[in-house]
Amino acid sequence: MIKIPALTKCYAPFFITFISFLGIAMTSLPTASVAKNISARATHFSLQNGMDVVVISDHRAPVVTHMVWYRVGAADETPGKSGIAHFLEHLLFKGTKEIPSGEFSKIISRNGGQDNAFTGQDMTAYFQRVSKDRLPLVMKMEADRMVNLRLTENDVVTERKVILEERRSRVDNDPSSILSEQMFAALYVSHPYGIPVIGWEDDMKKLNLQDALGFYKHYYAPNNAILVVAGDVNVDEVRKLAEETYGKNAPNNKLAKQNRPPEPKPQAARRVVLKDPRAGQATVQRFYLAPSYLTAEPGEAEALDLLMKIVGSGTTSRIYKKMVVKEKKATSAGGWYSGSGRDSGRIGVYAVAAGETPIEDAEKLLDQVLQDVAANGVTQKELDRARNAYLAEYIYGLDSQSRLARRYGSALVTGGTIQDVEEWPEKLKKVVLGDLQRVAKKYLVEKRSVTGILLPIPKEAADQAPASSSAKKS
Amino acid sequence: MIKIPALTKCYAPFFITFISFLGIAMTSLPTASVAKNISARATHFSLQNGMDVVVISDHRAPVVTHMVWYRVGAADETPGKSGIAHFLEHLLFKGTKEIPSGEFSKIISRNGGQDNAFTGQDMTAYFQRVSKDRLPLVMKMEADRMVNLRLTENDVVTERKVILEERRSRVDNDPSSILSEQMFAALYVSHPYGIPVIGWEDDMKKLNLQDALGFYKHYYAPNNAILVVAGDVNVDEVRKLAEETYGKNAPNNKLAKQNRPPEPKPQAARRVVLKDPRAGQATVQRFYLAPSYLTAEPGEAEALDLLMKIVGSGTTSRIYKKMVVKEKKATSAGGWYSGSGRDSGRIGVYAVAAGETPIEDAEKLLDQVLQDVAANGVTQKELDRARNAYLAEYIYGLDSQSRLARRYGSALVTGGTIQDVEEWPEKLKKVVLGDLQRVAKKYLVEKRSVTGILLPIPKEAADQAPASSSAKKS
Repeated sequence: MIKIPALTKCYAPFFITFISFLGIAMTSLPTASVAKNISARATHFSLQNGMDVVVISDHRAPVVTHMVWYRVGAADETPGKSGIAHFLEHLLFKGTKEIPSGEFSKIISRNGGQDNAFTGQDMTAYFQRVSKDRLPLVMKMEADRMVNLRLTENDVVTERKVILEERRSRVDNDPSSILSEQMFAALYVSHPYGIPVIGWEDDMKKLNLQDALGFYKHYYAPNNAILVVAGDVNVDEVRKLAEETYGKNAPNNKLAKQNRPPEPKPQAARRVVLKDPRAGQATVQRFYLAPSYLTAEPGEAEALDLLMKIVGSGTTSRIYKKMVVKEKKATSAGGWYSGSGRDSGRIGVYAVAAGETPIEDAEKLLDQVLQDVAANGVTQKELDRARNAYLAEYIYGLDSQSRLARRYGSALVTGGTIQDVEEWPEKLKKVVLGDLQRVAKKYLVEKRSVTGILLPIPKEAADQAPASSSAKKS
Repeated sequence: MIKIPALTKCYAPFFITFISFLGIAMTSLPTASVAKNISARATHFSLQNGMDVVVISDHRAPVVTHMVWYRVGAADETPGKSGIAHFLEHLLFKGTKEIPSGEFSKIISRNGGQDNAFTGQDMTAYFQRVSKDRLPLVMKMEADRMVNLRLTENDVVTERKVILEERRSRVDNDPSSILSEQMFAALYVSHPYGIPVIGWEDDMKKLNLQDALGFYKHYYAPNNAILVVAGDVNVDEVRKLAEETYGKNAPNNKLAKQNRPPEPKPQAARRVVLKDPRAGQATVQRFYLAPSYLTAEPGEAEALDLLMKIVGSGTTSRIYKKMVVKEKKATSAGGWYSGSGRDSGRIGVYAVAAGETPIEDAEKLLDQVLQDVAANGVTQKELDRARNAYLAEYIYGLDSQSRLARRYGSALVTGGTIQDVEEWPEKLKKVVLGDLQRVAKKYLVEKRSVTGILLPIPKEAADQAPASSSAKKS
């Protein structure tokens, strides 16, 4: 129901099951004891041209996950060029001198593999999953398109239609996506996280070959990239292959430090009300500006992760129990913490009103839950259960090789370190009850928030009448 | 009470009475018959280097108003550099080879003149009012600082403190200014009109010499400027002087067309709630995104000017009569149309709640007034009165030489023409009753709006408690 437009996946031939980057997905890690055949720690080294390499050995099956992460995303776009990072991600599937246009994914497929890519505010990533013996092939291909992309006017025109259609189907045809987009725009008054990854339609229509090549030539270079290989390989094998492929690419010595405008101190609570005949039930969402793992004071992000697990995750969460089970005012309700951003994070809560429940009543209940945790904290039992749930999730997470690869890649791409990833479980264990109440009080503050209300209206009422934008009047 | 942070004036030694650029100020014009000794029409020509020149002869007194308008403003700043246009305006009062640092205004003053400058979203303008015989002096001085500015690290450090103090006193110490700033940020989700002219504090702190010189060297050039001289001069005199002064400055042949991101179609009504212990009475404001004179369909902007005069201007306006006189729910209330922007305009309405009146009640009344004009239009009598009031204002406006100069300058600097200015009275006369209702229906639409609520709170309640951002709960 609730869409978080932080990442936009490419429509490549093979679609992957893509686990959210929100919450723990980015930072959870197996502990050394839990699984045989998986190295407890990743190995990190750099090539001479500045490219970072992370190797996670996993010998359970003769397959590898190969990812290249670029330290560039939608938040690095210049004004009026929104969507260019994601557009370029699509265009990387065109050709080079070696690979005819449109053949990249077909070659991977013919070799029994799968591939895809995604773009976020802080990163663009490409990945393949192939049998071990095909790793040299994909490394050669990925290293090739890092610097040798060939684009034609026709590629740009064709693919621009694709991204525009992607925007129409994913955002413009979906009121809850429109609302999320508007809420992000209201949450960030200056920082580019307020601009959608997919881009504003008017900007997208004008993206051209020169824009794409300019962005590509500046940001796609080994010294702006991280290679992550997880699977049935060892460090020396990967090092040798990486030197033979990516190692041949020249660095961009003019790579500039991205200079994103900082977000001013939050001043005023904001609301966004979207009335749409296509909406189903009335929905309330709220975002609070919060720090990310990279910007928080020590321990705060871990506390926020635990807090929001207790408050909003699943059917045993405080929000769900209060709103759906006890009061029966919502058919669905929950919350989350997104701590993976380079420059800031977010807390989110939401509820879908049940039956004829006025949306204000649902919002009031949501507020009561939040006020209660800020005023009275949570219980030790809840904290223990949330922490144990996270620990269990790491273990389950080990079953997914690609998830392991993403943990490291997503941390490193935003400026984190291997150590940040690997020390996370220990840091989580140090969080105490008071920490949760403290971050609740500090960040669940109305001036940090944007509330979004989605209201179904009869079709003929759309675009009618001047009126207040207050939800209560509709 | 209500602040519109569209223009930020410089704190120069001489302070001018500066009439708002909102509404009619930019477009009203004397008709030929109304005053002796004033040419009914301005004369417009260009110098060889591309500089536009407008001359308005006014022989009533031996004084002249001399203005230079640059086609660059805060909306042309790059991300993270907000405030640089206004900062540079301050720095223009430092020195050149000819003028020692800080002497510019002193020289004007010693010559019996006054000078100042201002920065808006679309323009930066400098002006002097001097006796006729000092015109050659000010033209020489202004032409000199157009291209010969000398700035030191010390100038920048000193003046940065001044603009930061300006921000503190004008915005941060004034809840209604903070609210307006937040409302603008919410009104524009992509276009830079959402960024304050004064700049975001974090950006301002980092503005440096290189930023200032870069902006100056690109945008300050004769082919990006308009000279307006109003007063006791004739066209040939001004042409000769202009050629001898500004005419010597080389154009910037690399001047790029400003490429501002367009504003996406409005999707959802927004609200901003600011609770501040420094606020006096509770206040409600609303902005609607509307076209400007330059972006509107023919006749729409004129109709919007007339509509908002009827709805919101003065004690005979609909809003005032309903809210202050009849219902006594507000101590002050009104509305306006701002049509001078290059890329868009705005409608605004506001009310200050009387006594213990809940702010929701005030908002509801405001809505009723707007709904009524959209549903039922206004009366012919109201339209006639509003139109006559505008016509009277042009005549009164003739008494102000600087106001005449501003009319032309502000129109030309945003891409309008002399003709746009001079044909305005005739266009105003063509507006009929149905036009007003049509623009009311078209633009007083909630999805185009941002509502701002300012609420006084006890000092100790500031920064407290997670809660809904809904005004009704406070």
